[in-house]
Amino acid sequence: MEKYNRSIWIISKINNGLSNAKKMIRIDPWASRQYDYEKLTQFGIKKFENEWKDLPDPPFFYRRGIVFGHRDFHKIKDAIKNKKPWVVLTGLMPSGKMHMGHKIVIDQVIYYQRIGADIHIAVADIEAYATRGYSLKEAEKIATEEYITNYIALGLKPCNIYFQSKNSHVKDLGYILAKKANWSEVAAIYGFTGSTNMAHVFAPFIQAGDILHVQLDENGGLRPTLVPVGVDQDPHIRFCRDIAASHRLYSVVEQGGRTGVFVKGDENVEKLLDIAEKIAKEHGYEYERNDAYKAIYMDTSDVDEIDFELAKEERKLGNYGFIAPSSTYHRFITGLDGNKMSSSRPNHAIFLTDKPEEAKKKIWRAKTGGRISIEEHRKYGGEPNKCIIYELFTYGLIKDDKELQKIYEDCKKGEQTCGQCKKLAAQLMEEFLNDLKERREEAKDRIKEYLK
Amino acid sequence: MEKYNRSIWIISKINNGLSNAKKMIRIDPWASRQYDYEKLTQFGIKKFENEWKDLPDPPFFYRRGIVFGHRDFHKIKDAIKNKKPWVVLTGLMPSGKMHMGHKIVIDQVIYYQRIGADIHIAVADIEAYATRGYSLKEAEKIATEEYITNYIALGLKPCNIYFQSKNSHVKDLGYILAKKANWSEVAAIYGFTGSTNMAHVFAPFIQAGDILHVQLDENGGLRPTLVPVGVDQDPHIRFCRDIAASHRLYSVVEQGGRTGVFVKGDENVEKLLDIAEKIAKEHGYEYERNDAYKAIYMDTSDVDEIDFELAKEERKLGNYGFIAPSSTYHRFITGLDGNKMSSSRPNHAIFLTDKPEEAKKKIWRAKTGGRISIEEHRKYGGEPNKCIIYELFTYGLIKDDKELQKIYEDCKKGEQTCGQCKKLAAQLMEEFLNDLKERREEAKDRIKEYLK
Repeated sequence: MEKYNRSIWIISKINNGLSNAKKMIRIDPWASRQYDYEKLTQFGIKKFENEWKDLPDPPFFYRRGIVFGHRDFHKIKDAIKNKKPWVVLTGLMPSGKMHMGHKIVIDQVIYYQRIGADIHIAVADIEAYATRGYSLKEAEKIATEEYITNYIALGLKPCNIYFQSKNSHVKDLGYILAKKANWSEVAAIYGFTGSTNMAHVFAPFIQAGDILHVQLDENGGLRPTLVPVGVDQDPHIRFCRDIAASHRLYSVVEQGGRTGVFVKGDENVEKLLDIAEKIAKEHGYEYERNDAYKAIYMDTSDVDEIDFELAKEERKLGNYGFIAPSSTYHRFITGLDGNKMSSSRPNHAIFLTDKPEEAKKKIWRAKTGGRISIEEHRKYGGEPNKCIIYELFTYGLIKDDKELQKIYEDCKKGEQTCGQCKKLAAQLMEEFLNDLKERREEAKDRIKEYLK
Repeated sequence: MEKYNRSIWIISKINNGLSNAKKMIRIDPWASRQYDYEKLTQFGIKKFENEWKDLPDPPFFYRRGIVFGHRDFHKIKDAIKNKKPWVVLTGLMPSGKMHMGHKIVIDQVIYYQRIGADIHIAVADIEAYATRGYSLKEAEKIATEEYITNYIALGLKPCNIYFQSKNSHVKDLGYILAKKANWSEVAAIYGFTGSTNMAHVFAPFIQAGDILHVQLDENGGLRPTLVPVGVDQDPHIRFCRDIAASHRLYSVVEQGGRTGVFVKGDENVEKLLDIAEKIAKEHGYEYERNDAYKAIYMDTSDVDEIDFELAKEERKLGNYGFIAPSSTYHRFITGLDGNKMSSSRPNHAIFLTDKPEEAKKKIWRAKTGGRISIEEHRKYGGEPNKCIIYELFTYGLIKDDKELQKIYEDCKKGEQTCGQCKKLAAQLMEEFLNDLKERREEAKDRIKEYLK
């Protein structure tokens, strides 16, 4: 079943792959659009296929391939498996209204909270001011009334939601992390030019501050950090991972089955190698020390463990000792007309605060995978992998995988018509929206429990 | 007398002017050095000659031409004259030790405090970390034990000293103000290139945050703001003035004896002109309104008043409404060898924590304006305007202008020898340092009164 549903996505990926084969992939976090996901592996994103199989109660966004890629998810799995602390950081841009595309992030956060993650959520109010013109007060109102209320209604339990403008650690890190980057590097990653607004230039640094501040001792300390994002956010992730590494005294890498530990600077090399050597001994690993190469090679393949231990030691020396954050990547939900779902195109997005009648009207106008006539549909069968209604089912409107599978098959066979699917979608959406509305009413009084 | 002392500086300026006539002036706040001060007027710095004459009890740094330039000092004079609130903002870089060159800033601050200014002092701890590698804790220790203790010992009364890393308003403004600048502009002002560290790129924005945050309602509100700086800091001042202006809805300029008020954007033009028109009426000024030009011309030469009134109105509309900060510029004190005085060259700087014996030794080695032999000195006379000892006298070691003048004349006539001057300087310095040391002891317990 899981296999089956994944195959849908794989087919669609291959289709995309063919049609976009010659296009350059340029990931731009400020202009989201659909990507040739298959090609993203070139950037170092790994496929998220088996990583989740032994996690507790795998949710629909894993089973149905919505979360399709990752970086260093093994650090998170290891923490879950060994019941060690780990943390999830996500953010919200307080602008416009929350739509089904935003929901998929919170679905993930709620799952991670349930299986033991410490949850931190940044309200990007500084970014909202700087790049979208909202005042901090407007941003606070939108964040609270629109986003946080819906998060609670969707099932988020009390956690740490904070406003960038009120979080000193984040703001400090934004400035401080800048020390290890120069203009050329930032410009290359983000495509900045001379006419780029400086508020855009600052944004990645604040986001790196968001992601890394949860590793500060004051905010829970050093632990594996997961950032679940849409794939358009990967430049931020790569940038933040680079920044984290650049603040380390050691680099720790896998080398032919061994773990290579290298002192990065030229200061205190001997002392730093002594520390690494001590760790090797404590763990009982065979090792080879080479002072001339500023290196120690340990006979262990557990790179993460050594990296983590060394980061702890770096903190004792007064350094930041960040470990590189992990990330997962989810597909964007498509707008009802087949293009991007966005607040700026309200007729093609379903908002969590839509009245059921509105939502139903939009659903009835949605693009489907149906044929041009009932007759043709019956004859040739539908194309669920091109159908926005089917996508809505996949993104959680239908909970049961068997039910989803049956619709897929019946559509392919031409036995399920678009009218039937739209009717079902409209009915499920109505139930969902009505239920959510009720829960929002209850949520309003509980917001304080969520704010740091 | 005042005239006389200024003439010394004027001669020295002319000399500089001749020798440097063909050099390009490039003001670089990160590499201070002596400038061709005369040429600075090309950048819009006005000579500070008569501005101070009717201020209460003019201090030595005015009388002796140490403060030599300004921008918009008339706003400050007007506030003093009309007993309106005004504010002084200065900053300290918590690195190294405080020397006589740093003292001249605090001399000014203490004077302004005495004549009624609200004093705010930024400890640039974020900048110290980002550009000089101090941790925030190290910076705090240096700021408190070295700088603030000396400030109190020198006579500063309780005021608002804050750490950048602990001041949310400053940090927010740093990010928020960035909205109105792009990379090309910042690069042009500061000479940034691709290899410029991003922490350097952020620094001017934090400094603009420092300067403008004192105009926020929470910190005393809209009022004339004076930033007394060394001339190498002028790029920051210009940048901050530009940033302040760019956050305004109106531009207000003198036009042929009238005040021209222009609406900058294309939104709400009529409403904004209505507001300006109302102000003209309230003040009883004749005016000419031209909606097509988005302008109102008022028959008043009091540009500042109109600018201030409009800034107040902008705030009512939810905007920042900053008024451009004023600044004064002081000369750098010279190191004892005739080059720059700097913490990095401790043998040629006198530190406020030097033991009198150390200071005296340095003074005895200092470069003077004396001739190569006593005989020649007696015959041709000395050159006080080339003498570092004389400069120390001028920078406050000798309080009395008549005494200073006598030394100048006696030196020129060859009647005062370098030995006599050094002996006097050593004695005065010893008294000053001993007295200061005693006051530092008392100051230590009072630091809390100064921190916000």
